[in-house]
Amino acid sequence: MKNIVCDVLIIGGGPSGGVTAITAKQTYPDKQVCVIREQEIQLVPCAIPYIFGPTLGSSEKDIASCAQAKISGVTPLLGRVKKIDIEQKSVQADTCTITYDKLIFATGSVPFVHPTLQSACELEGVFTIPKNKSRIDALKNHLRTHNSVMIVGTGFIGIELAMELAASGKEVTIIGGSTHVLKNAFDTELAVEAEQILSDAGITLRSGEYVDAVIDKKGIAIGATLCSGETVHAEAIILATGYQPNSALAKAAGLKLARYGGIWVDEYMRTANKDIFAVGDCSARRDFITKEPSKVMLASTSASEGRVAGSSLYGIKYLKGFTGTIAIFSTLIGQKAFSSAGVTEAEAALAGLDTVTGSFEGFNRHPSTIPDAVKQMVKLVAMRHGGRIIGGQIIGGQETGEMINIIGLMIESKLTIYSLLSLQVATQPMLTAAPTSYPIVMAAAIVANKIEKG
Amino acid sequence: MKNIVCDVLIIGGGPSGGVTAITAKQTYPDKQVCVIREQEIQLVPCAIPYIFGPTLGSSEKDIASCAQAKISGVTPLLGRVKKIDIEQKSVQADTCTITYDKLIFATGSVPFVHPTLQSACELEGVFTIPKNKSRIDALKNHLRTHNSVMIVGTGFIGIELAMELAASGKEVTIIGGSTHVLKNAFDTELAVEAEQILSDAGITLRSGEYVDAVIDKKGIAIGATLCSGETVHAEAIILATGYQPNSALAKAAGLKLARYGGIWVDEYMRTANKDIFAVGDCSARRDFITKEPSKVMLASTSASEGRVAGSSLYGIKYLKGFTGTIAIFSTLIGQKAFSSAGVTEAEAALAGLDTVTGSFEGFNRHPSTIPDAVKQMVKLVAMRHGGRIIGGQIIGGQETGEMINIIGLMIESKLTIYSLLSLQVATQPMLTAAPTSYPIVMAAAIVANKIEKG
Repeated sequence: MKNIVCDVLIIGGGPSGGVTAITAKQTYPDKQVCVIREQEIQLVPCAIPYIFGPTLGSSEKDIASCAQAKISGVTPLLGRVKKIDIEQKSVQADTCTITYDKLIFATGSVPFVHPTLQSACELEGVFTIPKNKSRIDALKNHLRTHNSVMIVGTGFIGIELAMELAASGKEVTIIGGSTHVLKNAFDTELAVEAEQILSDAGITLRSGEYVDAVIDKKGIAIGATLCSGETVHAEAIILATGYQPNSALAKAAGLKLARYGGIWVDEYMRTANKDIFAVGDCSARRDFITKEPSKVMLASTSASEGRVAGSSLYGIKYLKGFTGTIAIFSTLIGQKAFSSAGVTEAEAALAGLDTVTGSFEGFNRHPSTIPDAVKQMVKLVAMRHGGRIIGGQIIGGQETGEMINIIGLMIESKLTIYSLLSLQVATQPMLTAAPTSYPIVMAAAIVANKIEKG
Repeated sequence: MKNIVCDVLIIGGGPSGGVTAITAKQTYPDKQVCVIREQEIQLVPCAIPYIFGPTLGSSEKDIASCAQAKISGVTPLLGRVKKIDIEQKSVQADTCTITYDKLIFATGSVPFVHPTLQSACELEGVFTIPKNKSRIDALKNHLRTHNSVMIVGTGFIGIELAMELAASGKEVTIIGGSTHVLKNAFDTELAVEAEQILSDAGITLRSGEYVDAVIDKKGIAIGATLCSGETVHAEAIILATGYQPNSALAKAAGLKLARYGGIWVDEYMRTANKDIFAVGDCSARRDFITKEPSKVMLASTSASEGRVAGSSLYGIKYLKGFTGTIAIFSTLIGQKAFSSAGVTEAEAALAGLDTVTGSFEGFNRHPSTIPDAVKQMVKLVAMRHGGRIIGGQIIGGQETGEMINIIGLMIESKLTIYSLLSLQVATQPMLTAAPTSYPIVMAAAIVANKIEKG
């Protein structure tokens, strides 16, 4: 067994591990930075749904590049970590033993399956969506010869997967526990627009339903009974019911876990042990606004955490730490893009925040006679007292994917709607809404007016 | 002659006048707010180039809507203002006499023509691009029967017009005084990409050239001689050489003009007379970064000024005034979108700012195998000392039009590149670049690294 000595060891080569490694090497060029990962080939996690439809069509088109890490001088290692001795600063893998000075957990997340369905995962035809090429290929292969698909879960992965499968001619049923889809990102009036597109695509949506049991026919899943008592037949059942932190290794090493099972870290991604960090989905998150534990897992957030950790290993280089996850999402459903930042109106109410909202609908081009102009709707959620922006939701064209990052920046910069009323923006007929009715500004004005009127 | 008495009178019904009127009516619902304008039908100014090509094809498709003003309860008046008596608070128009309590100049801008070419404007076949439907229709009509077009000026209007005319089968030559096109918005390495697209579209670009004289054949323009001595033939000559404040009326009324001829105003758009305001292109502007007088005229900036003025007529409702124009531009040239915010590297150097730049090129989708993914390049300009962001330039897909508004907000919020290193953003395969290499963050990291290395 090989013995390796390095300065900085990162366990996991996903988005958070990769960014931490590159940032660490840039920050400390003289340190040896190693990344140990289990899979030689890693998928781009966010694009996994597109493997199953016409968009990518194959996992071969969804391979994450290691080029940047290689250029940066990061040392790649292949192996499965078995045990960590934090006293000896030593990591035992199946391929080697590594001693480190600084250790970073970037072990990611694994699919969450409700306890009542865990045994069903052993059946043929039942799948989860792990970030693992061979298991994704196995599902892809199964779908080649099976037409009816049940997707359990109405989060982003479930919806994106459903649309891709429907576009491939599959008969798709989605089972969602919530009243409306994408409930962590959109309030009802926006969610129903997404539901309309699913329906137009021929997808059957069963909302407010849970899978009670998967029907087992000699080891093969042939459908499921729902909590309402109804039976739905399907040749493939895909559980897209979220992910949970992959923190077993850290727990076994004696590190403290937080609620939801993530590794406890401070604002600089440090665990209680000053030489051990955790980043990405395996770390415990708090919401930026509510300061409550957060289950939101985003590659973009993971990358951001990786940049904080990578520049804070030997002292804190930049003062701005990671003070909570701003849930910033976007997706394309059919021809419409849906995006969301911060908390929804409903989430804010649940957390006890006293908010005022403003919604404005216009067009994403101006004048609206510009070919391909589509409706664009912006909703802002702000604090009643002081007007701080805590959330935003947009439906529109593909520009929406970057437009939500304007609202994300407003939330992160703790801006109020009052600073938006005279916001300077670029507007152009072929690219944006009109200067006289730029929807973020219009929505802010509606909020200001509502606050004033009390 | 009708005598009208109103509380708030706005002269001009373009973007700044319209937004001022609506904001004033919302802020002071009990005041009578009147807008007097010369033209019954007004064009959406930014979309005028698209009237001349396949995009809109007709001025009928570029009519500005008055619906919002009408709903808000703004009183429209038609007439040409002849004289203003600021002592008597009275405005004399050709259709009526109006007495006011608060007066707002929103008289816009008129085409700027170099003194040596002003007499040539009398010739048949020589045109400018005023915001005037009948004159736009006259040019459109002339082009129906004339094929070779010379455009003088390489700003946004000139380039957009050239592309539309080329797409309509016209033979287009552009004459530009600067070495590269769009020099107020892009540094050379980006401008050359725009020039390549012009060339691919069959447009002849003559850079670093001035029109010495228009060739007059019995009152009809048949071409021009350039400063190099060369002669270029053309059946239509369009002077797209910028605009100048339409401030003659204000000057005659005794108001102070600033350099470049705009009406002097403070941060709340007030002239020295506390009852008179000026907004939009007729007002004097300063650059947000350099604090130098600015010639930049944008409908989006005008709208922003209108919001400030409209809520500051009777006391200051919101503290945030207008502290300078951030030049935020975007346009689509062929299939590529070009956008820019703040100052370019070259402008910063001219203004004596000590800057560091960072450029990153990636793709606008991830992985780059996503269909329709195109290259996306971000350049940031920041202060060497402290890292404040003062400019940004982007080339990419249509998302670029909103992405530049992220950089605009960073400039307006006085953020530094250090706050961007761990910026939280939404990334999605179909809509944005990868989370691990979001280009604004990557460019910020390059700037930080350069500053550190000195």
